[in-house]
Amino acid sequence: MGIAESRRIGRAAILLALADDNGMDTVFPASWKYCCGRVGSMNSQKIVAALETAAKSGHMIQQGVYRETHALYHAIMEALYGVTRGQVQLGDVLRTVGLRFAIVRGNPYESEGEGEWIAVALYGTIGAPVKGLEHEAVGLGINHI
Amino acid sequence: MGIAESRRIGRAAILLALADDNGMDTVFPASWKYCCGRVGSMNSQKIVAALETAAKSGHMIQQGVYRETHALYHAIMEALYGVTRGQVQLGDVLRTVGLRFAIVRGNPYESEGEGEWIAVALYGTIGAPVKGLEHEAVGLGINHI
Amino acid sequence: MGIAESRRIGRAAILLALADDNGMDTVFPASWKYCCGRVGSMNSQKIVAALETAAKSGHMIQQGVYRETHALYHAIMEALYGVTRGQVQLGDVLRTVGLRFAIVRGNPYESEGEGEWIAVALYGTIGAPVKGLEHEAVGLGINHI
Amino acid sequence: MGIAESRRIGRAAILLALADDNGMDTVFPASWKYCCGRVGSMNSQKIVAALETAAKSGHMIQQGVYRETHALYHAIMEALYGVTRGQVQLGDVLRTVGLRFAIVRGNPYESEGEGEWIAVALYGTIGAPVKGLEHEAVGLGINHI
Amino acid sequence: MGIAESRRIGRAAILLALADDNGMDTVFPASWKYCCGRVGSMNSQKIVAALETAAKSGHMIQQGVYRETHALYHAIMEALYGVTRGQVQLGDVLRTVGLRFAIVRGNPYESEGEGEWIAVALYGTIGAPVKGLEHEAVGLGINHI
Amino acid sequence: MGIAESRRIGRAAILLALADDNGMDTVFPASWKYCCGRVGSMNSQKIVAALETAAKSGHMIQQGVYRETHALYHAIMEALYGVTRGQVQLGDVLRTVGLRFAIVRGNPYESEGEGEWIAVALYGTIGAPVKGLEHEAVGLGINHI
Ligand SMILES: [Mg+2]
Ligand SMILES: [Mg+2]
Ligand SMILES: [Mg+2]
Ligand SMILES: [Mg+2]
Ligand SMILES: [Mg+2]
Ligand SMILES: [Mg+2]
Repeated sequence: MGIAESRRIGRAAILLALADDNGMDTVFPASWKYCCGRVGSMNSQKIVAALETAAKSGHMIQQGVYRETHALYHAIMEALYGVTRGQVQLGDVLRTVGLRFAIVRGNPYESEGEGEWIAVALYGTIGAPVKGLEHEAVGLGINHI
Repeated sequence: MGIAESRRIGRAAILLALADDNGMDTVFPASWKYCCGRVGSMNSQKIVAALETAAKSGHMIQQGVYRETHALYHAIMEALYGVTRGQVQLGDVLRTVGLRFAIVRGNPYESEGEGEWIAVALYGTIGAPVKGLEHEAVGLGINHI
Repeated sequence: MGIAESRRIGRAAILLALADDNGMDTVFPASWKYCCGRVGSMNSQKIVAALETAAKSGHMIQQGVYRETHALYHAIMEALYGVTRGQVQLGDVLRTVGLRFAIVRGNPYESEGEGEWIAVALYGTIGAPVKGLEHEAVGLGINHI
Repeated sequence: MGIAESRRIGRAAILLALADDNGMDTVFPASWKYCCGRVGSMNSQKIVAALETAAKSGHMIQQGVYRETHALYHAIMEALYGVTRGQVQLGDVLRTVGLRFAIVRGNPYESEGEGEWIAVALYGTIGAPVKGLEHEAVGLGINHI
Repeated sequence: MGIAESRRIGRAAILLALADDNGMDTVFPASWKYCCGRVGSMNSQKIVAALETAAKSGHMIQQGVYRETHALYHAIMEALYGVTRGQVQLGDVLRTVGLRFAIVRGNPYESEGEGEWIAVALYGTIGAPVKGLEHEAVGLGINHI
Repeated sequence: MGIAESRRIGRAAILLALADDNGMDTVFPASWKYCCGRVGSMNSQKIVAALETAAKSGHMIQQGVYRETHALYHAIMEALYGVTRGQVQLGDVLRTVGLRFAIVRGNPYESEGEGEWIAVALYGTIGAPVKGLEHEAVGLGINHI
């Protein structure tokens, strides 16, 4: 019972987001789906939109099924809490992000009955809208789908 | 200017926290200090205390210098935002965490004038106080020290 | 002492907001004032403005008396917490609302000395800016006026 | 597409929580499951525990399936945001709640593919730990399950 | 219209809370009521209780009138946001406060119709539960009463 | 050990922000730097920008050294928590501020080893975007630099 060692979906998503080489060494079950990408903006709406678009075009979620969009949305919001640490705001408090993201879908649990889950990982920089005035940030959101 | 590719302190801290083998492959400058450990509790105060104690006993911060304790404290709090995603509460909302942590201290910037920074990374599980009813969580806090 | 059974102002406001038939069956003292309306937007400012405008044009608050505007404002904000559940943000996190609202003013307490109170109730849907990708949400704010 | 008029799960849950007569007039599909109850405490952990216990003993969720516990937990947390309006804290900020709750499980959408959802509604009073020094509060959390 | 220069109730409360000499030089209308005191704790409940007790014993609010207790409570909570800056938590995140407080009651507006308002000001230190490992903090909450 | 009586940097910053006469009577070490100013907006980004610009043009922080910008930024954000009390939002929730600010830099501690700290104090009004429909607000953020 519990999370299987070789199926830690959050760890896999974070490693993909951290990867410099597209994460080719990250190991997870072949049946899982994933996608990666980059997004930078001081407009938080654009960050959410970029993640949703990537998930849809990467066939991570079924289009037209709201429960899948809903699961993804809350995973994105939870990942943003880690990146923003207090208030989910970017431009409104004069800061911007440059992020690499990974979305992974699969069952991390030993029991088949747990079905599919989705992990959204974000890694990059947050800071003033001036190159170099920034530090790293990470976020991870996980939801059943 | 900016964060040096080989000195991404947040990435290093996260990789250490994710490592199954004590992170021996994580690469960062030899001059940097780091420590790792584990803590599990549904008492958020104990999580903060365990991180502060590890930092002190690992000589990550100077004892008796408040500015170092202050820098560490805010890095810990920022990491907890990523783990808790909304309210920095554990037992009060009937959940518990089991975390592996890493604290890294060094200068991630190309300019020497940026001085030292501290990164606190947390990785583990959060969930109901019942084994297996949990999913993964990650947090990263970074501060100048 | 306490809230009179027949004068539960929050319950009355919620029932009005939920009503499909303009809430004609909702029972409360004849001396109370109330107004209802609808507002939809992904701009949170417009939601606040619509509620303030409805309250003024419905003679729920005295214009030019700041204490009444202040009481209403905080009641609106508290209702928005229930609708947004975490961050009082709509478009900034790529979501929109379609709400029916009710504002009720009266004394819900058995003691006349408690004076007047105001209840702001919101009921509707929140979700992606795509018809159907949404679920219900409710909020209630109550303040002395 | 969208939420079916006769299957508004959040509205049903709120009406059950508001009901003085156990909500016998609330109409929803016969296939849906629901349970109601009462809980009062200034210990937020006890509120969460009471809701989880009621859901399990009322067979609202499958025991031993984490995805169902997870769906319920987040619905409870979202409902608590509405009740607490800012910080999910009770005794820590010297306030207590007396709540009636309803949990409803079913598919509110016109499409069968949306599967089951869960709604947690809370209605009652919040205030100082002194009888009568309190006002009403409402919360609603909705999640796919 | 607006706040009268000589009746800035928040400024008066802050000056009283900052005063080393009991604030004897702080100027405000003779008709206003005020009280001052000190409280230190890592238990946030005790901070709220100390302020409520001081207000009652200093006859700042009418006992047994909930609307006055309610007005005071929200002013206290708003002041605590300034002191805690993010999460209204003390011991739960391993920190403690030592505060001097002032509560002032009066009408700060030029118009008599604005009635009475209450200001709660907090000034002191926040930090680790070790003498000296702390910095200053301030909070101000204002409400109509 | 601890904060020196005559070097309470937060108290000095607040007194400067409260001062009607540019704070000429506020006493602090001659070696400290400070600047004051005014800013009003319903755009939170402009508030942050005005404070950063004032700090730079007043030579409070070294330009091009990110650790100084970072220290200032977090001090500003903490001060904004006190002003906004819950959500760091202005126009998005239909409110505006008119603030006087003070930024002070120096070592408030008895030990020289504590180095320099920065205090950001805000005092003014917050309310509806209508003259007079507003009350006072205060915020203080303190950080090591
Ligand atoms: Mg979860
Ligand atoms: Mg930072
Ligand atoms: Mg209240
Ligand atoms: Mg949702
Ligand atoms: Mg106010
Ligand atoms: Mg601090």
